[in-house]
Amino acid sequence: MAGQALMRKGLAPRNGMLTESRVAAGLDIAPLENLVFGGWDLNDGDAYSATLKHDVLPRDLLEKVKEELLAIKPWPAVASPRFLGECKREAVMTAREEVEQITKNMTDFQRAHDLQRLVMINLASTERYCEIEDVHKTLEAFEAGLDSNDPRISPSMKYLYAAIKLGVPHCNFAPSRTRIPALEALALKNRVPIAGEDGKTGQTLLKTALAPMFSVRQLVVEGWFSTNILGNNDGKVLDDPASNKTKVLSKQGALDEILGYAVPNHQVHIHYYRPRGDAKEAWDNIDIVGFLGERMQIKVNFLCKDSILAAPLVIDLARFLDVAKRAGEGGIQRQLSLYFKSPYFAQGTRPEHDLFQQYHLLEEWIAEASKKRASLAAVS
Amino acid sequence: MAGQALMRKGLAPRNGMLTESRVAAGLDIAPLENLVFGGWDLNDGDAYSATLKHDVLPRDLLEKVKEELLAIKPWPAVASPRFLGECKREAVMTAREEVEQITKNMTDFQRAHDLQRLVMINLASTERYCEIEDVHKTLEAFEAGLDSNDPRISPSMKYLYAAIKLGVPHCNFAPSRTRIPALEALALKNRVPIAGEDGKTGQTLLKTALAPMFSVRQLVVEGWFSTNILGNNDGKVLDDPASNKTKVLSKQGALDEILGYAVPNHQVHIHYYRPRGDAKEAWDNIDIVGFLGERMQIKVNFLCKDSILAAPLVIDLARFLDVAKRAGEGGIQRQLSLYFKSPYFAQGTRPEHDLFQQYHLLEEWIAEASKKRASLAAVS
Amino acid sequence: MAGQALMRKGLAPRNGMLTESRVAAGLDIAPLENLVFGGWDLNDGDAYSATLKHDVLPRDLLEKVKEELLAIKPWPAVASPRFLGECKREAVMTAREEVEQITKNMTDFQRAHDLQRLVMINLASTERYCEIEDVHKTLEAFEAGLDSNDPRISPSMKYLYAAIKLGVPHCNFAPSRTRIPALEALALKNRVPIAGEDGKTGQTLLKTALAPMFSVRQLVVEGWFSTNILGNNDGKVLDDPASNKTKVLSKQGALDEILGYAVPNHQVHIHYYRPRGDAKEAWDNIDIVGFLGERMQIKVNFLCKDSILAAPLVIDLARFLDVAKRAGEGGIQRQLSLYFKSPYFAQGTRPEHDLFQQYHLLEEWIAEASKKRASLAAVS
Amino acid sequence: MAGQALMRKGLAPRNGMLTESRVAAGLDIAPLENLVFGGWDLNDGDAYSATLKHDVLPRDLLEKVKEELLAIKPWPAVASPRFLGECKREAVMTAREEVEQITKNMTDFQRAHDLQRLVMINLASTERYCEIEDVHKTLEAFEAGLDSNDPRISPSMKYLYAAIKLGVPHCNFAPSRTRIPALEALALKNRVPIAGEDGKTGQTLLKTALAPMFSVRQLVVEGWFSTNILGNNDGKVLDDPASNKTKVLSKQGALDEILGYAVPNHQVHIHYYRPRGDAKEAWDNIDIVGFLGERMQIKVNFLCKDSILAAPLVIDLARFLDVAKRAGEGGIQRQLSLYFKSPYFAQGTRPEHDLFQQYHLLEEWIAEASKKRASLAAVS
Repeated sequence: MAGQALMRKGLAPRNGMLTESRVAAGLDIAPLENLVFGGWDLNDGDAYSATLKHDVLPRDLLEKVKEELLAIKPWPAVASPRFLGECKREAVMTAREEVEQITKNMTDFQRAHDLQRLVMINLASTERYCEIEDVHKTLEAFEAGLDSNDPRISPSMKYLYAAIKLGVPHCNFAPSRTRIPALEALALKNRVPIAGEDGKTGQTLLKTALAPMFSVRQLVVEGWFSTNILGNNDGKVLDDPASNKTKVLSKQGALDEILGYAVPNHQVHIHYYRPRGDAKEAWDNIDIVGFLGERMQIKVNFLCKDSILAAPLVIDLARFLDVAKRAGEGGIQRQLSLYFKSPYFAQGTRPEHDLFQQYHLLEEWIAEASKKRASLAAVS
Repeated sequence: MAGQALMRKGLAPRNGMLTESRVAAGLDIAPLENLVFGGWDLNDGDAYSATLKHDVLPRDLLEKVKEELLAIKPWPAVASPRFLGECKREAVMTAREEVEQITKNMTDFQRAHDLQRLVMINLASTERYCEIEDVHKTLEAFEAGLDSNDPRISPSMKYLYAAIKLGVPHCNFAPSRTRIPALEALALKNRVPIAGEDGKTGQTLLKTALAPMFSVRQLVVEGWFSTNILGNNDGKVLDDPASNKTKVLSKQGALDEILGYAVPNHQVHIHYYRPRGDAKEAWDNIDIVGFLGERMQIKVNFLCKDSILAAPLVIDLARFLDVAKRAGEGGIQRQLSLYFKSPYFAQGTRPEHDLFQQYHLLEEWIAEASKKRASLAAVS
Repeated sequence: MAGQALMRKGLAPRNGMLTESRVAAGLDIAPLENLVFGGWDLNDGDAYSATLKHDVLPRDLLEKVKEELLAIKPWPAVASPRFLGECKREAVMTAREEVEQITKNMTDFQRAHDLQRLVMINLASTERYCEIEDVHKTLEAFEAGLDSNDPRISPSMKYLYAAIKLGVPHCNFAPSRTRIPALEALALKNRVPIAGEDGKTGQTLLKTALAPMFSVRQLVVEGWFSTNILGNNDGKVLDDPASNKTKVLSKQGALDEILGYAVPNHQVHIHYYRPRGDAKEAWDNIDIVGFLGERMQIKVNFLCKDSILAAPLVIDLARFLDVAKRAGEGGIQRQLSLYFKSPYFAQGTRPEHDLFQQYHLLEEWIAEASKKRASLAAVS
Repeated sequence: MAGQALMRKGLAPRNGMLTESRVAAGLDIAPLENLVFGGWDLNDGDAYSATLKHDVLPRDLLEKVKEELLAIKPWPAVASPRFLGECKREAVMTAREEVEQITKNMTDFQRAHDLQRLVMINLASTERYCEIEDVHKTLEAFEAGLDSNDPRISPSMKYLYAAIKLGVPHCNFAPSRTRIPALEALALKNRVPIAGEDGKTGQTLLKTALAPMFSVRQLVVEGWFSTNILGNNDGKVLDDPASNKTKVLSKQGALDEILGYAVPNHQVHIHYYRPRGDAKEAWDNIDIVGFLGERMQIKVNFLCKDSILAAPLVIDLARFLDVAKRAGEGGIQRQLSLYFKSPYFAQGTRPEHDLFQQYHLLEEWIAEASKKRASLAAVS
């Protein structure tokens, strides 16, 4: 939110977004200036005090958009202690009431700001690990679960359900599990574009760029040891072993998929380390075996900033999903795999993890969409 | 040579080569077992004592192919103090005599081993930097230069010329300058496949995998500081500033080409550091600018082995060039760009540096060649 | 053992030992050549097959002392599943029988090799964490515990007890808890020199050299994040959370003690990572706050070899303890703090962790002992 | 200057200075609040605009001492193109006139601010390398050189001469050569305390902490490869090979001196790299040989801030030199070796480089001085 306000005022460069680059020039993308933000939060306050607290932007820059941010006040979020350790209170509403409230928040918001279209992005803290069970497998079971207040339906799933029912494209940028057959089918049926899970920002981004390099050179990865330290609230949540499991599983899939074999010693560790703040640091050690079985090593130390890497992807996703919606597409948007650690994939297919194959998918989709748009323009 | 002997005996895994992977399964590739090696060297001795001295392979492994390596004795190399600091003696032959001798070495070698086909790979030490001048620009000028013993014709060019005249595919794996219009034209005219320059093994390999990642994420590279330490003879040669310049220029091109802008603070340093031996170490610091102009850093430390990374590429190149020759191709083999720091490119085009675009070129070429071969098989 | 055999034969340099340097020249140190090794192990076999399996030394070097190592066969070790996860069998002897057996092993060994003096070093795997309880607090309670087979008396304590009773100097090079009041008192009473705990080899060595530097420059340590990866049996044992706790606690003490304040974000992680083998790798990130509160960072990556760092310290310790014994000293040998992560300290004092203060203690002790020896020589 | 102003106002913590720690509590140290700064510069302007340009402090912090800094305007510096590449103009004064002007600046300054005592610190850019020649060897030759305008007398030497003649203690915090017999003798004769050369801040600080660790463990250093990148004006000056030589020589001495042998592969590289700004980054690779000749490596990456590390040392030095002066000491202050890469040492002695030995020297001196002060207090 702060970023858009700053860019709109010309106070910050438009880095980090494909939707602001030549790559997407052929698409009819919603202007950055026209985006309006609202959202839910477990904490009260406003976007200004939250930004201040998270200490991501230089203070003097932040002050220049204070007014805009003060005006954004979150609605109370739907949450559950079962899925989030730091949520201390039990839900007071039924599942159905929660879905209704989410829906109402959206329609009120749209009316209040006189908005043409909506997109929902899940940016909430990582929920605890959960298995896919019967209640998640068919739309009937899922809706029956909502009716019976089934505790296995997570807050993230409720948001996704509400979005699809309202015809609002949805992206799950969090690692929380939302790829469930019930909602995949609903999105397809209702022609609502959906994308997820878990924004690919730092270490996994690097991993999915380096792994294809090893393939190209036929270097065998014998071990990959990854450590992350971060000091923001995301880091604190991941100190909860059950949330940590969700995240680590999300980070581990890509490697084997890209390389085509199970890397024997692949470890991912995430630690809360306060001095790092919102900055995030990854240290990777990679053991490779080359010609004649000779061993070599690569160490990568990424000194990055969590929100700075994530925010432009969120803007890209919102705008690409909006384009997809207007083009009449629905269900899983495979061309957006580029943005995720655990990209959604249709049942019966495999997820695409290779960063450059992912990019290729997006390029092809953009070319196709641009061509259609050009031919429509030619007709009209 | 040692590697092939070991793999032939089943004493080492066949890692590191695309020609031994599924990728190239559709091609009619010369079996690894059938390759026979010969070569030139400034030093006397044999392949066994050279391998021993360079200390690349574990001693106990080396002993198992001692006999094969003892049998390989190099022919005296053509060299010149003007182009190589460590070459102490002036040439005693004219340029024409040198070309004749190189040619005779090859034909004698082919006859002695009853070989069907030859490929020549330039693996010599880096020559000093030289500008492209008139003598390099047309075949007429070049051949007149050979006749008049023009000192600007480097040893590397003489080898390349001899290969093309004999119809032998040639690859320049060294950074020494061989991409000159005179020989590019000759290779095309005589339908001899050529490829080069400067094998892409360690730091530049990483660079051409990471740079596309920055493009995909629209992260702006504000600086890239690269240091290399190596302790083998290659390292010693690069202590000569004029040879160093050739190498550094070769390493610097890729980045700007991939990113589409001139990286403002790109430095490449190479240092001879004896404790590293044939192992090679690269340390890279990358400064990137992301969303809202925020700065981040990546450090990469690559503990690699020079010869271990290079040798399988040499085997791939020899076999792919041989396939190309049999398929009737000639001139610059753009599909082999994958293997080079400064890939050859036809005049009027741009070099391809992006590792994944390069791989795509090779895949397409393999697919095409496999299809042709399959249809030929269907016919016969 | 292999090292001593190699050095005795002049096949390896005498690096890494203060007892082989000028520093200790004034002492009457037992010649390296005269040391004879024996020991206990959970596994059968001999020192040759163990060395082979642990793959620490180059194979060709190892072969040169094969005979010596084959001759060393371990006696069955005293162990307990309560203290070591990988010990699968329950003890078949009573605690008293175990102590007797340890004693008998030693006296038999001394007789068999006609040895003048013995020293015992505990090099066993890390035992699970245990609290100091009543049974450990007085000699009476401890001996009653032996009589009643108290399960809280660890194998490490039994070895230490046996050594002290036999008048054999003892060093605990493992992190297992042996600093208990009962045995500290016994060692003092019986005038047996003892030293421990937990050999200071890699990361903690670095920590206790860097921390004094921060003190000297009044740089405030705001966080220290330490990760270790190792792939040998020590690493596997540390995958057991209770053993890991013992080790991590041992590694954490030094920092606060040296700096004089509690470092707020000090984390130590140890991971079993197979590709590393007996080599050990540490990655440290240090956050420091300097002038005007400005933040800076240091990253240290130590690519070391566990046994190679440890073995010379063991030799030093054996010889220094022997000198101390002959000089009539008993109880905790504070001057050997230099060698330990958690140096023994007498009750009512503080442990010395600063590497350079520790070295100073040893230097002073050596000077004192050398002076005494010189004056004795003058007398006689 | 900015730091003192901030600390005086309580806007920044008093980190980084021994003179603000318990260590120096026994001395009669000039209160931080009472220091008044003046100085020379090649550039006009004032301390505020210089601080702004060098971008060391957060902007909002800087604004809080804007007024104090605006009031500090440098006097024109004495410089010479022979010693500094970026000095473009030839001197217009004779050497004697320059010395007089420096002296007058000081006496005027003292009078204007009604100061009790002065200390001079050389913080100028690194001068080009120069040899010690006859003109530097005796006071007579030096003063004759001043009279005859000898070009081999550097600006740094003129400042030092002026200070000593005025009885003002002097510290050379720059790497420029000032340790010359002529001035060493003069300082001793006139009882003026002097200290230098080249503030030990980042990489060399680390080196002199790690090298003693290797000694303590008898690990042999086989190679040490050091690279520095920095983007401030100091970095730019060091792009001049002759200034670079001065600096590199200053950085290279410590290692051999501490270890007691010539490290065979010690390299120090310094590169100007603009993205780093006033932050400074060092990457060190250390190759060590341990037990049985086995090799290990340590990599250190120090992300530091040049001025932040240097400034508190300057404050310490000014105050300690002032204490020394009042205590009647003169000549080389060996107890301040702690602060320098190339500590001054009296002829016939060796420089002390070991960080912990240096600290020990300072502690002893402080103890001695505190004792004297206490006994004086007891008398009075």
